[in-house]
Amino acid sequence: MTDQPTSIVAGAESATADVAAATQAAEDAFAQYRATTPQQRADFLEAVAAEIEADTDALVEAAVAESHLPQGRITGEVGRTTGQLRMFAGVVRRGDHLGVRVDPAQPDRTPLPRADIRQRMIPLGPVAVFGASNFPLAFSTAGGDTASALAAGCPVVVKGHPAHPRTGYLVAKAVSRAVASAGLPAGTFSFLLGDGIELGQELVRDPRITAVGFTGSRGGGLALVRAAAEREVPIPVYAEMSSINPVVVLPGALEGDVAGLAQAYVGSLTLGSGQFCTNPGLLFLPRGAAGDAFVAAAAEAVGQASGTQMLTSGIAQAYAEGTARQSSGDGMTVLATGSAGEGSDAPAPQLTEAASADSPVVADEVFGPAGVVIRYDSVEGLLPSLADLEGQLTATVHAAAGDAEAARALLPTLERKVGRILFNGWPTGVEVGHAMVHGGPFPATSDSRTTSVGSLAIERFQRPVAYQDVPADVLPEALRDDNPWGLLRRVDGELQA
Amino acid sequence: MTDQPTSIVAGAESATADVAAATQAAEDAFAQYRATTPQQRADFLEAVAAEIEADTDALVEAAVAESHLPQGRITGEVGRTTGQLRMFAGVVRRGDHLGVRVDPAQPDRTPLPRADIRQRMIPLGPVAVFGASNFPLAFSTAGGDTASALAAGCPVVVKGHPAHPRTGYLVAKAVSRAVASAGLPAGTFSFLLGDGIELGQELVRDPRITAVGFTGSRGGGLALVRAAAEREVPIPVYAEMSSINPVVVLPGALEGDVAGLAQAYVGSLTLGSGQFCTNPGLLFLPRGAAGDAFVAAAAEAVGQASGTQMLTSGIAQAYAEGTARQSSGDGMTVLATGSAGEGSDAPAPQLTEAASADSPVVADEVFGPAGVVIRYDSVEGLLPSLADLEGQLTATVHAAAGDAEAARALLPTLERKVGRILFNGWPTGVEVGHAMVHGGPFPATSDSRTTSVGSLAIERFQRPVAYQDVPADVLPEALRDDNPWGLLRRVDGELQA
Repeated sequence: MTDQPTSIVAGAESATADVAAATQAAEDAFAQYRATTPQQRADFLEAVAAEIEADTDALVEAAVAESHLPQGRITGEVGRTTGQLRMFAGVVRRGDHLGVRVDPAQPDRTPLPRADIRQRMIPLGPVAVFGASNFPLAFSTAGGDTASALAAGCPVVVKGHPAHPRTGYLVAKAVSRAVASAGLPAGTFSFLLGDGIELGQELVRDPRITAVGFTGSRGGGLALVRAAAEREVPIPVYAEMSSINPVVVLPGALEGDVAGLAQAYVGSLTLGSGQFCTNPGLLFLPRGAAGDAFVAAAAEAVGQASGTQMLTSGIAQAYAEGTARQSSGDGMTVLATGSAGEGSDAPAPQLTEAASADSPVVADEVFGPAGVVIRYDSVEGLLPSLADLEGQLTATVHAAAGDAEAARALLPTLERKVGRILFNGWPTGVEVGHAMVHGGPFPATSDSRTTSVGSLAIERFQRPVAYQDVPADVLPEALRDDNPWGLLRRVDGELQA
Repeated sequence: MTDQPTSIVAGAESATADVAAATQAAEDAFAQYRATTPQQRADFLEAVAAEIEADTDALVEAAVAESHLPQGRITGEVGRTTGQLRMFAGVVRRGDHLGVRVDPAQPDRTPLPRADIRQRMIPLGPVAVFGASNFPLAFSTAGGDTASALAAGCPVVVKGHPAHPRTGYLVAKAVSRAVASAGLPAGTFSFLLGDGIELGQELVRDPRITAVGFTGSRGGGLALVRAAAEREVPIPVYAEMSSINPVVVLPGALEGDVAGLAQAYVGSLTLGSGQFCTNPGLLFLPRGAAGDAFVAAAAEAVGQASGTQMLTSGIAQAYAEGTARQSSGDGMTVLATGSAGEGSDAPAPQLTEAASADSPVVADEVFGPAGVVIRYDSVEGLLPSLADLEGQLTATVHAAAGDAEAARALLPTLERKVGRILFNGWPTGVEVGHAMVHGGPFPATSDSRTTSVGSLAIERFQRPVAYQDVPADVLPEALRDDNPWGLLRRVDGELQA
């Protein structure tokens, strides 16, 4: 590596993270960037993907070194990051993000004529993005938040994550190259590196910032939510924060290969040192012999698992404290402890049983390979425990054909708790698609009405504007009668191509 | 009138406004209400409209007596209220509010197969609605917020406005009749009457409430926003609060019938005693002879206008204080004062000129028939004044064919300030349609990402949930392969019937 990571404000490198310079450059770039046609903006998003792809080798080397995540995982993340940008480019090229609605004039309506009213979505303005430590590419500098804000037409100022400054810097350079070659203002994208929480707070308080995307801890997210609410002009914060991702194993699911199911659970629990927002931290299991066999097999698998180096010493330290709380809490019993890996930051996986879901220890997310099992007597008896959970990103159900009735009974309760319900799989994979929801009720996120993964994420950075009786030669292109961009439009409420 | 207004909690009348009883009934009703099919829910919304219509005579009598608004206006409001419910019924019957997305499984994808992922919108839960004083029907008990929350599938608890308790009560009885005849749980709709701000605060703090709709003052709205943010689980508040609705008269617009234009302006300014959120409180006018003529004609019209009784003594008192601030502020000149109407609460319309838009007096909304005029030298010089305005519900441009270039120059600035831009009309009429936006940047509303009028308003009370590999016999009807409701769905991102 030759490049020393540094801040990149409006295309130029600088040793200091100058928040005001970056936000002013973003504000100055906004008018031109948001005026890009769907075609231009889609081309730009694809150019960002291509620039990142061109740097794959350097990026993988940097990200593996900084995150301690395996090379295969990081290579996959490059593909996920570029695939996401290209998927958003597809949405933008179709103009679907514009959400155009036309209610034509009715000059002869009585008692009053109706005006011509048209609606489109416009971008909010400059967006601040806080990358996550656990996905140095897909949820970081040019990850989902950045891609969706750029797709919406918002300039982006990224606060680079201090756990992977070199990776972030290389990605930021790639994005800046795409900005330059597209002829866009350099302030369309800036990247700020700096220590401490002050930089982030300053960014969120800056009056030129109009929305915030964040993935990280509950404490960090809530601090940004507070700062945003206390501004003279409050702004939306999309903070993805905390989730223990309950799994419900229904009785029928234990009629098959119980040991295999338990091993798959432990595989998801310990994947990537458990450092996923969607890690299955809490598992509800029927009482009885089949459940006992699952516990025995899961305990054996955890006992055989060894730790791998975590993202940062701080995360490893928090994990050690969290597992200590879980193993010593009232009504908690340790079922198995794996072995620590090499180095000081590779703590052992742990499996605990909780006597009930009521314990506050159960509700606290422990970020890492720590699972809690709770046994239940009946699905009916399980429902109140699920209803009492805090909001979550995901809920998983393992069910066989005979469990359909129980599964249908669970669904309404789970829907009110989570953003994604999945069957007979594990929550740790989050597909980037049009139907994905990576979100959920508070405190899983600060705003349940949206998602941070998938194309619906673009809508987070937009708002509707109505145009009433605007003359044809003044009307924005997206709204013109001749529909020059060939948009799908809702005319008097009905979709028309 | 025989009926004494009182609270209606879960269908039964009670003298006390029991918040907990109403919210618990709403929570209890939620599962059944949200499970209604599109057809059932649409039928119910239409039944609400029919029940209100059946009571038109009593409603008009009560609303005229309580609001002092003219009978024709109130009769129109009944039609607007029922028309709104029926329009939302149409959206719900088509199932458009469900926003269904399907990403089919790709079992053969490499390196990893893709799961089957489907998305729909679900309702948030019980919603608290605070009606507005100035639209005792269309923005109150069964107004836009209630209609859109019910359309989304959310039970509603209305805090009845103390300025029209009898009107609110009659509407609430009509809604409750529709709830009963649809076989829905009585808690689907409750109506609480009580004095003071404590009742509203208690309602917003109640843990069973999941979102809030409000139309009213900035102080009132911000207090609810704060209360909602301080909850253990924060919830969204859609508060429509404050707007002075700038009007820009471009030079070409003064080449025609200047006096007629000025009279139309004063007509909009004084309509309904100026008690509209969209009242045109601030008008930018070119310097020069034509502008002088406009001012003279407007001043004459205001001078000849007389006050009409305002909604409440409190509003009349606030208007008196506001016009006093406007007439005595630095750089402010009174151009004309009309005459007071009969009674103590019918203050005189007032027209003032401000030397510049910088004065804080100019930015403060004065609710009532008070207009401020600012003269400008050039459109270029006008842009910074517009850019410095707070967020607004509307901006109006008066322009002739020769003003197109200037109008195009204004548009990007206006778009960032308002929710609706209208040409050659007046902002006081708000059409209920699919393309309408009645919203705008803070402080016009607390959440610019949506609208409180028009069918997009339904989305405020929903959130997305993804269903991954959910078995066919467990999947909600809206998401099934055979598409029993005939929904338009986004399949792999592309809309398909």
